[in-house]
Amino acid sequence: MAQKISFRIVWGVLALLIILASIFADMLDLPDMRWVIIAACVLILVFAAYLLQRMLKLDAGSEAMQELAGHIQDGAQTFLKREYRILIVFSLVLALLLAVFIEPRPWVSLSFILGTLVSALASWIGMSVAVRANVRTASAAQEHWSKAFGVAFSSGSITAFFLVGFGLLSLTVLTMVFPSPYVWLGFVFGATTVALFLRVGGGIFTKSADIGADLVGKVEVGIPEDDPRNPATIADNVGDNVGDIAGMGSDLYESYVSALVAAMVLGQITLGQEGVIIPLLIGAIGLLSSMIGSLFVRSPKTDGGSYEWQVRKVHRTMNIGVYVSNILLVIGTYFLLTHFLEMDGLPIFWCVLIGLGTGFIIGPVTEYYTSEHKPVIDMAGSSQKGPAILVIQGLAISNMSTVIPIIVIAVATVASFHFAGLLGIAIASVGMMANLGMLLTMDCYGPVTDNAAGIAEMAKLDHKVRENCEMLDAVGNTTAALAKGFAIASAALAALAWLATYFETVNITIASITDAQVVAGLFIGAMIVYLFSSLTIKGVSEGAFAVVEEVRRQFSDIQGLLDGLSKPDYVKVVDIATIHALHSMLLPGILTIIIPLLLGLILNPEAVAGLLMGSLLVGLPMAIQMANAGGAWDNAKKHIEAGNFAGKGSTAHKASVIGDTIGDPLKDTVGPSLDILIKLVGKMAVIFAPLFSLFMLGL
Amino acid sequence: MAQKISFRIVWGVLALLIILASIFADMLDLPDMRWVIIAACVLILVFAAYLLQRMLKLDAGSEAMQELAGHIQDGAQTFLKREYRILIVFSLVLALLLAVFIEPRPWVSLSFILGTLVSALASWIGMSVAVRANVRTASAAQEHWSKAFGVAFSSGSITAFFLVGFGLLSLTVLTMVFPSPYVWLGFVFGATTVALFLRVGGGIFTKSADIGADLVGKVEVGIPEDDPRNPATIADNVGDNVGDIAGMGSDLYESYVSALVAAMVLGQITLGQEGVIIPLLIGAIGLLSSMIGSLFVRSPKTDGGSYEWQVRKVHRTMNIGVYVSNILLVIGTYFLLTHFLEMDGLPIFWCVLIGLGTGFIIGPVTEYYTSEHKPVIDMAGSSQKGPAILVIQGLAISNMSTVIPIIVIAVATVASFHFAGLLGIAIASVGMMANLGMLLTMDCYGPVTDNAAGIAEMAKLDHKVRENCEMLDAVGNTTAALAKGFAIASAALAALAWLATYFETVNITIASITDAQVVAGLFIGAMIVYLFSSLTIKGVSEGAFAVVEEVRRQFSDIQGLLDGLSKPDYVKVVDIATIHALHSMLLPGILTIIIPLLLGLILNPEAVAGLLMGSLLVGLPMAIQMANAGGAWDNAKKHIEAGNFAGKGSTAHKASVIGDTIGDPLKDTVGPSLDILIKLVGKMAVIFAPLFSLFMLGL
Repeated sequence: MAQKISFRIVWGVLALLIILASIFADMLDLPDMRWVIIAACVLILVFAAYLLQRMLKLDAGSEAMQELAGHIQDGAQTFLKREYRILIVFSLVLALLLAVFIEPRPWVSLSFILGTLVSALASWIGMSVAVRANVRTASAAQEHWSKAFGVAFSSGSITAFFLVGFGLLSLTVLTMVFPSPYVWLGFVFGATTVALFLRVGGGIFTKSADIGADLVGKVEVGIPEDDPRNPATIADNVGDNVGDIAGMGSDLYESYVSALVAAMVLGQITLGQEGVIIPLLIGAIGLLSSMIGSLFVRSPKTDGGSYEWQVRKVHRTMNIGVYVSNILLVIGTYFLLTHFLEMDGLPIFWCVLIGLGTGFIIGPVTEYYTSEHKPVIDMAGSSQKGPAILVIQGLAISNMSTVIPIIVIAVATVASFHFAGLLGIAIASVGMMANLGMLLTMDCYGPVTDNAAGIAEMAKLDHKVRENCEMLDAVGNTTAALAKGFAIASAALAALAWLATYFETVNITIASITDAQVVAGLFIGAMIVYLFSSLTIKGVSEGAFAVVEEVRRQFSDIQGLLDGLSKPDYVKVVDIATIHALHSMLLPGILTIIIPLLLGLILNPEAVAGLLMGSLLVGLPMAIQMANAGGAWDNAKKHIEAGNFAGKGSTAHKASVIGDTIGDPLKDTVGPSLDILIKLVGKMAVIFAPLFSLFMLGL
Repeated sequence: MAQKISFRIVWGVLALLIILASIFADMLDLPDMRWVIIAACVLILVFAAYLLQRMLKLDAGSEAMQELAGHIQDGAQTFLKREYRILIVFSLVLALLLAVFIEPRPWVSLSFILGTLVSALASWIGMSVAVRANVRTASAAQEHWSKAFGVAFSSGSITAFFLVGFGLLSLTVLTMVFPSPYVWLGFVFGATTVALFLRVGGGIFTKSADIGADLVGKVEVGIPEDDPRNPATIADNVGDNVGDIAGMGSDLYESYVSALVAAMVLGQITLGQEGVIIPLLIGAIGLLSSMIGSLFVRSPKTDGGSYEWQVRKVHRTMNIGVYVSNILLVIGTYFLLTHFLEMDGLPIFWCVLIGLGTGFIIGPVTEYYTSEHKPVIDMAGSSQKGPAILVIQGLAISNMSTVIPIIVIAVATVASFHFAGLLGIAIASVGMMANLGMLLTMDCYGPVTDNAAGIAEMAKLDHKVRENCEMLDAVGNTTAALAKGFAIASAALAALAWLATYFETVNITIASITDAQVVAGLFIGAMIVYLFSSLTIKGVSEGAFAVVEEVRRQFSDIQGLLDGLSKPDYVKVVDIATIHALHSMLLPGILTIIIPLLLGLILNPEAVAGLLMGSLLVGLPMAIQMANAGGAWDNAKKHIEAGNFAGKGSTAHKASVIGDTIGDPLKDTVGPSLDILIKLVGKMAVIFAPLFSLFMLGL
């Protein structure tokens, strides 16, 4: 970000002013305090637009680079377009159901459609930004890694701020127009539906392409990663955007709006109108804190230094942003809560801190188990004894990696409940998500640098350029690990918050495990998780097979492909992966929506509560285990490739490649999809609860 | 079993008479109806002793065979002795705790010790029988496979009837002397403690030896399975006895007594004295039904026929026993329940049927997913694409394989609760276990034939002999799969029954998931499962490493070992595997006992209920998934070795060997150990509940 200091100061002061206005909104003479929140959202959207036009003005590189980037753009847009087409059908069915059955009609249905549109639009923007930023990052890396960092980071901010800004703005307006919580629920449900599709579909796409590209390219033909002769290489790069930008983005965004709405619903029940506004104000403060934090992230102006030194430098630069935004958030919410509420606001503040703390413990645990620390190094060592031992070791370690996160979430649950009851759990989840702007910026930064490295390789740019991009990407891997831990933890808290919301909206005060129907619900919840994970894994393996066959076909049919004399048909591979991903996504998507509905119709409402709890209880550790196993195998391979245990080509390396391939669908498809699953069932239950009582078979 | 028809008739008539006496026990003029049950137990023990002396009289084969069998005997006994030594220390600590804190003092503690002794003794007998039967089976196989079948089956009966007979007898006497349920609980807790050690320790031992033997023997040195030159081959055979006889036996036995006691405790609360006697009478009827069923299993008197034909024949022969015993059980309990109880006994009868049915659905599902059906054949096919794809496919299939069992258990829970409340769940679990005599016979038959095949190979007997034994072993693999499904399902029902017992003994009527402490308990329960599985997997991999090193050392240090000129030091390998297994067993064992205790002391009793439910909910599908993944990989390998997909030595075969090795600890160590875990926490909770209230921190 080459903008001048003076610009930073202007933006920063504006943001700070609105933070102050948020804290003391009740003292301003406004028709509705929520105008402050709207102002915050407008500011962030304008800021994002400003960053966007700056980014687009940058040099997009040589013609060859632009052509490659064009392929990635086309592929990503084709995928998203097709996915949206299915999504539209799916959403219309749900919208119809809502329009017929759920009061206030047709507002719930309409706000559901609004929720879908906002989420789909924001993801579209995010993708479009990322596929334009990648080539500009590569181009900037020709000049200096520091400049490339600026481009990538700023593109992350654009996506993040558009997503979060649109979300908070829509929600705020919605609460101003409709006082009925059911309308807000509709909005969240829209976000969930989009997230389900983008996460599951995107996850299956990205891993089919990745595994397919590797199995033929690296293993059979023996050409390196991102080699332009590999017909699946564009699909692989498309996958990064589809999976990590659209997928992860819509997932975290979903956690964000669902945390807010759960807190608003429970807040309204507990505290009245104040309870609705408080979460929104926390959201506004968090959003602006992220913006100010991002202003503190300045591209390091320095030359040279070793690879490790550069990595550390980039890390530190980003960490400054994280620290600043978190400190601002904590201070802001402290003053807001102690001053705004009539009652003692301190317990609510503790819940915010608990949520924030939970994310900050789980992140480093994830990093410990998946980055170059003892567990991963041990695993790399054990791969000398062959792939079987490596896989066994990986299972042992990844199972162990769930222990601390689960304990932390259990403690967070008890503690936040202690401070503020069910509302406390929802507030904790708001606290965790409030800083999403910053988190998402860092998360979207990763795939952009990854793509940039790919473009540099494919366009045969100078070796140094690729190295620059890869250095930036290495930092991206750590932030991705943190984001994954965060996504899972936030899913858990959001799921708990929605369980609480379900209790309150259905008026359940007790769902006891002494009741056989609740026990049955718990079991069915557990079952859904296994069913869902089985179907998504199957989707990846079938998709990968299809890609493998197409790539093999191209290598044998297209004359001179291996010698670089002719070009592969990239589009065809993207096409095949798209069709398979969308096809495989349908069944798990539909099942996870139908099973809770069915259960709600057959058994009692308490059984549905059991279902939510069961899917969370089984899905959470499984999601953590899969994500960490995949991450650890991936990095064990990288550790060996860095020259340890006899390095590339050794027995250990071959074993580690197998481990990595096994981990791929676990960490990038199933694990993340489980996040959505455990959040989805809760929303299904809350939204369709009126239907249950209407049709109850009353067993 | 070459006994004459007349003998069979005498035994059968005696058993039938006592079944009739059990049904109409209330009409007999007895000081206590339970004398009938004692008579049943005495009959079965005498029958077992009769079979035993017949078996011991059989030819034990050549000197070479006896020497090899002697090594296995010594190894198994050494292992068990050492394990018992640790067990004694562990049990004494628990006994002391019980003696100090749990009323009625010191009876709970003493009956705990009794429970430990009975279980340890019965397992010892079972092992001693098996390690004598193996060589006699091999010897009989020199004559005819039909004769060998008779020996192996009869040895299974001996073990089964001793185990079940001792268990039922002790329980019956205990209820006659002590009317306090807490004393009976002590007895079960003893059985649980023994099962924990035998299952976990035995599981780690058997897989360390197995993987260690394969990694060096098959992979590095290139000698076949059971080659006498492999120093780990005796340890491998010892492992079969230690894991499959002592481990599986003590596990199923534990399910048996805990189902009975749970039903007795809940029965006493619901129906008074009648409620205590009913489960015992069902047990007696089941035991004698098994005995009569086993009398119907007659060695097929026929020569020739293809391998497949023989397998089918043996299957059919055993199935006759299963059908007869089940039909007798159903008829017997129907008359017992409709006539004995003052109230309408039919609902209780339905619960028995539900339990029986659950086992009979889950068994074939397990078989479908792990034997040579579509899933396994698909997996074998996918191994052509390398080990990574095979493992991914295996995960997809094994996750899917949990779906039906979980639904069945959920339905069984709701249905049996519908018929008879919490008692109904316990009765269902009694119904499932009542026929344990037959089930255990079939289960213990497998490892004996497996060992026999090993001895035939090691003693270099005629090829035909080994083939005979392997044919019998093939049937054993199917019965083992059924037994595994049964063990898991019974663990689930037993765990639910103990949850119910916990509710009743602690007087909890509600443990609601609206209570944050219950939610925390659920999470901690989930966490224990992951912690436990991580530690046990780690135990296997460390044990296997140690065995690998020792085997490598022997191959390099002992001159002429590979040429068959000198003998390996079998004892040393057994020693090393033993030490590692016992060492690795301690931490998971202690943790699973301490964590529920701690939670009970820190949080409320409802949180402990959450813990039980959480560990069941997470442990059950994981146990099923691991068992089935391992079984499927194993059989995918066998399918390839039978000549499919290019057969032995092909790429597919190499991949399948890796899959098999990964599955080994999952199916034979972790999965089965999880059975114990989910049963153990329930017992811990019930037994130590008085302690919780004594020391409650009262958060």
